[in-house]
Amino acid sequence: MTRILGIDPGLRVTGFGVIDKDGSQLRYVASGCIRTCDRETLPQRIATLFNGIGEVMATYQPDAAAVEIVFVNVNPQSTLLLGQARGAALSALAQGGLPVAEYTALQVKQAVVGHGKAAKAQVQHMVVRLLQLAGTPAADAADALACAICHAHGGLGGMAALGGRAYRVRNGRLIG
Amino acid sequence: MTRILGIDPGLRVTGFGVIDKDGSQLRYVASGCIRTCDRETLPQRIATLFNGIGEVMATYQPDAAAVEIVFVNVNPQSTLLLGQARGAALSALAQGGLPVAEYTALQVKQAVVGHGKAAKAQVQHMVVRLLQLAGTPAADAADALACAICHAHGGLGGMAALGGRAYRVRNGRLIG
Repeated sequence: MTRILGIDPGLRVTGFGVIDKDGSQLRYVASGCIRTCDRETLPQRIATLFNGIGEVMATYQPDAAAVEIVFVNVNPQSTLLLGQARGAALSALAQGGLPVAEYTALQVKQAVVGHGKAAKAQVQHMVVRLLQLAGTPAADAADALACAICHAHGGLGGMAALGGRAYRVRNGRLIG
Repeated sequence: MTRILGIDPGLRVTGFGVIDKDGSQLRYVASGCIRTCDRETLPQRIATLFNGIGEVMATYQPDAAAVEIVFVNVNPQSTLLLGQARGAALSALAQGGLPVAEYTALQVKQAVVGHGKAAKAQVQHMVVRLLQLAGTPAADAADALACAICHAHGGLGGMAALGGRAYRVRNGRLIG
């Protein structure tokens, strides 16, 4: 069994999701968001993210991590802030000695929904189905779980996520 | 006495400089560069920076940190990488529980050279004079030392750096 920590980095909200992979079986463990306050200084916000991910790691003891590759924002200042948030996430993982894989949003969507142009709601929907969740996680947590699922399937696209089941998928929804 | 760690963040090279401030006296302690290999993955490079700054802190036990505010690059991808390097630096400082001050390159140059448009060589020259160094540190290490000096002088611009001495400065060079 491998426990995978997925992370969707952001300065205001960093999503995390923990799943167990046992053969072709995936099991939900935990997910949530680490939030920072925009009235704090940047060093304080980075510390919150760094320490928050450290707490998640200490609590759930993952074996591997998968971090979404963030997109370059239109606003260079936002890009710089996002980069720093991602640096905090990678640093926390480095401190824990975790092997880190990186996936683009395209790869994550392909692995979870089956195509790279899926909407956020489709990703959430498929995360709920694949992990058999009772409720829908927040968008950032769902993205983090999706990133962990992508890693669990070797980062490969397509419907590997569905294993041997005879499901059919249309527009990212299970229909069979 | 306060020991200040200055950091000039960069993904390829992160400069660091440690000085002691004792009243109006500044004393050089150490400086250097943490280099990452561009054949490594980004998570590995971030780990190198994070661990490198951790080692510097463990070795020199600073009381406070000053980190240069990096500029937004023309290339958005470079901005994102630079942001991640800076995030690693801030995370390492957060882990050490150090209070972190941030200064723009303009503030650093004003504090060290006396005006914000100083060239890199002028900054290096003034760092050598102010800290009475036998040799000239590498550019990134000099920038980090300059950032520490800026913090030592309360982040204020002008020639506070020269204390009560009767030096005159022209174009960033001591002339009296």
